Amino acid sequence: MMKKLINHPENVVQEMIEGMVHAHPQRLKRVPGTNVLVRRDAPVRGKVALISGGGSGHEPSHAGYVGAGMLDGAVLGEVFTSPTPDQILEGIHAVNSGKGVLLIIKNYTGDIMNFEMAAELAEAEGIEVKKIVVNDDVAVEDSTYTTGRRGIAGTVFVHKIAGALAEKGASLEEVHRVAEKVVKQVRSMGMAMTPCTVPAAGRPSFEIGEHEMEIGIGIHGEPGTERSRLASADDIASKLVAHVLDDLKPAPGDKAAVMINGLGATPLMELYIIHKKVSEILAEKNIQVIDTFVGEYMTSLEMAGCSVTLLKLDDELTELLNAPADTIAWKK
Amino acid sequence: MMKKLINHPENVVQEMIEGMVHAHPQRLKRVPGTNVLVRRDAPVRGKVALISGGGSGHEPSHAGYVGAGMLDGAVLGEVFTSPTPDQILEGIHAVNSGKGVLLIIKNYTGDIMNFEMAAELAEAEGIEVKKIVVNDDVAVEDSTYTTGRRGIAGTVFVHKIAGALAEKGASLEEVHRVAEKVVKQVRSMGMAMTPCTVPAAGRPSFEIGEHEMEIGIGIHGEPGTERSRLASADDIASKLVAHVLDDLKPAPGDKAAVMINGLGATPLMELYIIHKKVSEILAEKNIQVIDTFVGEYMTSLEMAGCSVTLLKLDDELTELLNAPADTIAWKK
Repeated sequence: MMKKLINHPENVVQEMIEGMVHAHPQRLKRVPGTNVLVRRDAPVRGKVALISGGGSGHEPSHAGYVGAGMLDGAVLGEVFTSPTPDQILEGIHAVNSGKGVLLIIKNYTGDIMNFEMAAELAEAEGIEVKKIVVNDDVAVEDSTYTTGRRGIAGTVFVHKIAGALAEKGASLEEVHRVAEKVVKQVRSMGMAMTPCTVPAAGRPSFEIGEHEMEIGIGIHGEPGTERSRLASADDIASKLVAHVLDDLKPAPGDKAAVMINGLGATPLMELYIIHKKVSEILAEKNIQVIDTFVGEYMTSLEMAGCSVTLLKLDDELTELLNAPADTIAWKK
Repeated sequence: MMKKLINHPENVVQEMIEGMVHAHPQRLKRVPGTNVLVRRDAPVRGKVALISGGGSGHEPSHAGYVGAGMLDGAVLGEVFTSPTPDQILEGIHAVNSGKGVLLIIKNYTGDIMNFEMAAELAEAEGIEVKKIVVNDDVAVEDSTYTTGRRGIAGTVFVHKIAGALAEKGASLEEVHRVAEKVVKQVRSMGMAMTPCTVPAAGRPSFEIGEHEMEIGIGIHGEPGTERSRLASADDIASKLVAHVLDDLKPAPGDKAAVMINGLGATPLMELYIIHKKVSEILAEKNIQVIDTFVGEYMTSLEMAGCSVTLLKLDDELTELLNAPADTIAWKK
């Protein structure tokens, strides 16, 4: 049985968008007739514009990060469904002020295809566009909807850091360069204890036993690396961090930012318990944690579970991570 | 079956506190040997200090609101269990700078008793203390743990507004006066679709049918006004707002702030769908909504459901609501 606060399963994204615009008129405006939400002051003159987007169901990603110092616009697809190229093109039109547009794309086949097509259409109109593909999930190569690694919570660090540089007036080339640097230095891995239900489907995205968890799961419930008996928070944290560290290979003394991300139904209490162990492991490895983010940043509807993200920081990234941001879900 | 990211059920609050302090060392410090979290710079000279607290399981309440412009300290009880008077007294000691301490108490019998006892102990030591009891829940008079109305999400507005006035250097009497004004002008009502599980209990706090919801439920799963078949988001929003408006009786043209609060497992998408209807109803009634807050402010572990809070604003409250705040869960 699907228990949700909705009206009609087919209208959830439309009604969510209306609710967002009602709630945040000082921050967001909707491009009329589209599922595109942009900064109230878009297009911002003299600034490279950043757009992200993808399927809905990952709130606050991405509309929650639209605002000064982060994204200029978010293009919202149906739940777990890529937005169409024409919608993305509408977004590009709405934010472009002539200094170029960066598309931040999570690595899913549908997203890549549609954002690329929109980029080509925009370029044909003479708009300068660059793309950055985020693939921070170390769990698996290739998955249900993806060739290569998936883009998950680490994407939010790309929004923050590239957005901060754009806000300073940097060129599209520079903003793209720093976004690439973030992608190279960010890794994540997640786990889930329960599935979620796409409203229009009406039934859970996967089945999982009463005592089971899945490690390495994707944010749409795509299979992970391992299904096993639900372990302790410490064991889960250790496993997630081990995979991330194995891949990122930070050196002792390196600086980093940490994100403990809830997938939707996991209480903050549990995320902080996970973080306790994560921070102990990083201290043992002599990784210097500069900033920590615990909460819901990239969700999967009402899935219970979490992901751990590590971003290796240098001076440039540290400064940009600390720069001002004024969005619904990230204020600095 | 209880599916949680924990280690030992008895240690959840201790490990959460450690995780919080690890994550936010720039904002929070723990009073050694206690379950009290205070501002990094506590005690703040020349400032009235604000303390809140109560049982854990409502995160980000209340430690998430500790910081400049809101609370000076939070006293954390075990899950859904009042903190003891000696812990509250430790909190008072840690934040008191000689200008007096305001205790913000949600109306539950255990909380009232223990905060009052702590206040008496502090006064016996010569510390000036005032108390404010929040009872914003219009659902029921008297309930499982309460005489009179319960204190729920509206409490966060008391933290924000009284905290802002204290930060400006106002006297204890003034800060208490404005807190009282907020309590008089704030009303809430909630509903739930699923129960939650206190870790040490290991089983759900109540039973509810697969197609049922409970309107007017408390943040510990205390009974509400009505159990019925799960209705549409619009019907639920209408019912919650109707109860709140009946009690608060705002006049057409009145200004207000709105909070759509998730109880733990409800996706932001659904909260925005609820908000869409709430904002339509308020527009019809000609209530001028000055600010809207949609997210998790006062949770009940992993309960699925929401509450709607309305705060009637005058110029003083509007100014204080908009004043700067720098806490983990509320930044302005």
